[in-house]
Amino acid sequence: MRTYDVIAKKRDGNELNESEINHVVNGYVNGSIPDYQMAAFLMAVYLKGMTVKECTYFTKCMLSSGDIMDLSHIAGVKVDKHSTGGVGDKTTLIIAPIVAACGVKVAKMSGRGLGHTGGTVDKLESIEGFKVGLEKEKFFDILKKVGCCIVSQTGNLVPADKKIYALRDVTATVESIPLIASSIMSKKLASGADCILLDVKVGSGAFMKTSEEAIKLSKLMVEIGESFGKKVTAVVTGMDEPLGSSIGNFLEILESYEVLKGNGPEDLREVSLYLASQMLYMAGMGNLTECQDKAKRSIESGSALKKFKEMICAQGGNISALEDEYCKIKFRVKYECLSSAAGYVTHIDASQVGKASMFLGAGRLVKEDSIDPYAGIVLSKKVGDQVNEGEVLGTLYSSDVIKCKEAENIFKESFKISNKQPYKSPFVRAKVTFGKVDTYVL
Amino acid sequence: MRTYDVIAKKRDGNELNESEINHVVNGYVNGSIPDYQMAAFLMAVYLKGMTVKECTYFTKCMLSSGDIMDLSHIAGVKVDKHSTGGVGDKTTLIIAPIVAACGVKVAKMSGRGLGHTGGTVDKLESIEGFKVGLEKEKFFDILKKVGCCIVSQTGNLVPADKKIYALRDVTATVESIPLIASSIMSKKLASGADCILLDVKVGSGAFMKTSEEAIKLSKLMVEIGESFGKKVTAVVTGMDEPLGSSIGNFLEILESYEVLKGNGPEDLREVSLYLASQMLYMAGMGNLTECQDKAKRSIESGSALKKFKEMICAQGGNISALEDEYCKIKFRVKYECLSSAAGYVTHIDASQVGKASMFLGAGRLVKEDSIDPYAGIVLSKKVGDQVNEGEVLGTLYSSDVIKCKEAENIFKESFKISNKQPYKSPFVRAKVTFGKVDTYVL
Repeated sequence: MRTYDVIAKKRDGNELNESEINHVVNGYVNGSIPDYQMAAFLMAVYLKGMTVKECTYFTKCMLSSGDIMDLSHIAGVKVDKHSTGGVGDKTTLIIAPIVAACGVKVAKMSGRGLGHTGGTVDKLESIEGFKVGLEKEKFFDILKKVGCCIVSQTGNLVPADKKIYALRDVTATVESIPLIASSIMSKKLASGADCILLDVKVGSGAFMKTSEEAIKLSKLMVEIGESFGKKVTAVVTGMDEPLGSSIGNFLEILESYEVLKGNGPEDLREVSLYLASQMLYMAGMGNLTECQDKAKRSIESGSALKKFKEMICAQGGNISALEDEYCKIKFRVKYECLSSAAGYVTHIDASQVGKASMFLGAGRLVKEDSIDPYAGIVLSKKVGDQVNEGEVLGTLYSSDVIKCKEAENIFKESFKISNKQPYKSPFVRAKVTFGKVDTYVL
Repeated sequence: MRTYDVIAKKRDGNELNESEINHVVNGYVNGSIPDYQMAAFLMAVYLKGMTVKECTYFTKCMLSSGDIMDLSHIAGVKVDKHSTGGVGDKTTLIIAPIVAACGVKVAKMSGRGLGHTGGTVDKLESIEGFKVGLEKEKFFDILKKVGCCIVSQTGNLVPADKKIYALRDVTATVESIPLIASSIMSKKLASGADCILLDVKVGSGAFMKTSEEAIKLSKLMVEIGESFGKKVTAVVTGMDEPLGSSIGNFLEILESYEVLKGNGPEDLREVSLYLASQMLYMAGMGNLTECQDKAKRSIESGSALKKFKEMICAQGGNISALEDEYCKIKFRVKYECLSSAAGYVTHIDASQVGKASMFLGAGRLVKEDSIDPYAGIVLSKKVGDQVNEGEVLGTLYSSDVIKCKEAENIFKESFKISNKQPYKSPFVRAKVTFGKVDTYVL
């Protein structure tokens, strides 16, 4: 088979068969296909798309390029969760203990973040002593004893995706729905869980800008997952304003802690409970109403908070780091941004807020950048809130007052304030399961 | 400027400005942009196209990557000619002496052929002693004394095109009208002539399969050329059956010699005179009718034949090699293919005939292949001719009878024979000059 012919076939918009896709993926991984041919192929895929069948072959071939985690020796249903990423999205930190407290095991491998703020493992690492790079046996051990464990991806999980993603990243072929779907699903399938919940973010602060795109991606991922015999649910949730009030690694840990204590911002609590109940439902813990009740009760009873602390301890983290007195020492510069207008907050541009938090030190621009775990932003106002002139919109945290000055403008420009009270659309926009799309609002 | 952003801009179908195109072309040539980014860019161009403006910038930048031939010190109008390539296309060999005999200088740099048969320089090299790799001074000298000279491209003419073409060749991005137009025009403009005639072949044996595509390519090349202040005419000519009767390097030299003697196949004579008169017209040698008469008379008077011989002598070729007795010694195996049906020849698939001649040794499959100058095919029948069962369709020439056996089937299958006399469409389908398209038949 000639690589040239496979590129030309995709370029002309035709469906590739399994052996053609295997030829390209395996050839690229083993080095017999050079970067430039793969780059031309990826651009052709970006512009001409791939069918469900092609995505399934692509995912299957990437999956087989590395290890697949075997969780079968761990009793019970194992669930996993993935978010396509948004500003202030710390739901994994809240959901994992809730679901574990309800008796379902959460085996989660997370990536590091590039851009706005850190990924889940960066956030956890902001807790003094917390270890994300555990040996497999230790990971299994915590999963069995605690019921949830969040680690960074191991070295040989889907190496094909790693190599292909690195090329997409420099050839403007990242934002392709079939490639995103295959990349996410290959990693989720390699993690070995029985059920997978996908949180597909939509809005100005997300990869997917429209609900149509988000539903398309959701359907594709669900179909790929089902063809591998997994239970998969995708939920489309809004990402126009940041989720919750805190943006920044340790700040998000603190906010998650608050939600588990029964406090915290309403939007974050609501979406976390919704996602957790979907996971419990997939794991067979009753009908949806029963699962929602279970999730709620885990917070009210303190059992979810207990799981959170257990997990942190098991992974070497210092619980006392979460207490207020401790924090005050760490946040060196605290800088309040005041509103120059009065009215209703009608919009907070999530990606602008993310950019501001990155300037403060909370995110990475390139892989090699180090993160300031204590940098970030806490919003005092959310969309729909009333604000007076001179009132605090949010507080910036950084090691450096100059960085705060730089971030202030970006932060303030992310707010739109007007006389008219805005319509606030619900967070959950759609739910996609195999063969079924429920849309709530588009 | 980030290469990534330029790729993304083209990927999204936007028009690039001059500095963006310069960034990509110069960066690729100087090595700061890697193959894989250029490959993604080229695939994006293939699928999203380029406007006339973009093609002009692209051509200009490629042009400036190397030397530009300065012909200003040679008196008179200098004309050049380019064919997009077809099977049996030896018109350059006939036109150059005709135009030179009429007093207009033909400065022609030709490439080698890849595929079916050799390029013009391969054909000329089949004449014993003929030199295509001349020093610049020698080239100018022959141009001044004889009036026409055909040489191979020098080393540093449009190196950007060479490097980009090599990448297109392995990334399935060759057959793109904007890229083809920019590539051809950069080479033609670097050759330094005042007027350029483009012969765009259309049909089953050509790159361009439809007249619409051929006209699109023609218009684009004319517009690019005009923006550089050159006179450019493009002529769309048919390439469904091979042009003339001979296919193969030395065989085509002999056929050209015959046409210049006033004999040879009618279609070849007709199209050669048409193209030559277009060149004379561009060079200001009178109106079209006058130019046609001049071209015709150059053959009738023997002055074109004289120029042909002078050029061959000046470039070191052995004229006696063109005499019949000499040839018989060279063609070792002569193999007649007989018709198994009776009727009218309704179609001769040019690319199949080309393939058969390549099998016989007349063409290259890869750059490194050597060519057998004496291999090839002479057709006894053309489209429209009547044929009886057992009558000769054509004669194969090769060094090896086994090759003839292999080529026989391909050759015979290229013929379609039926009871009904076919409609034979004229060779010239359209003529494109700046701002004007004359279509004769589509």
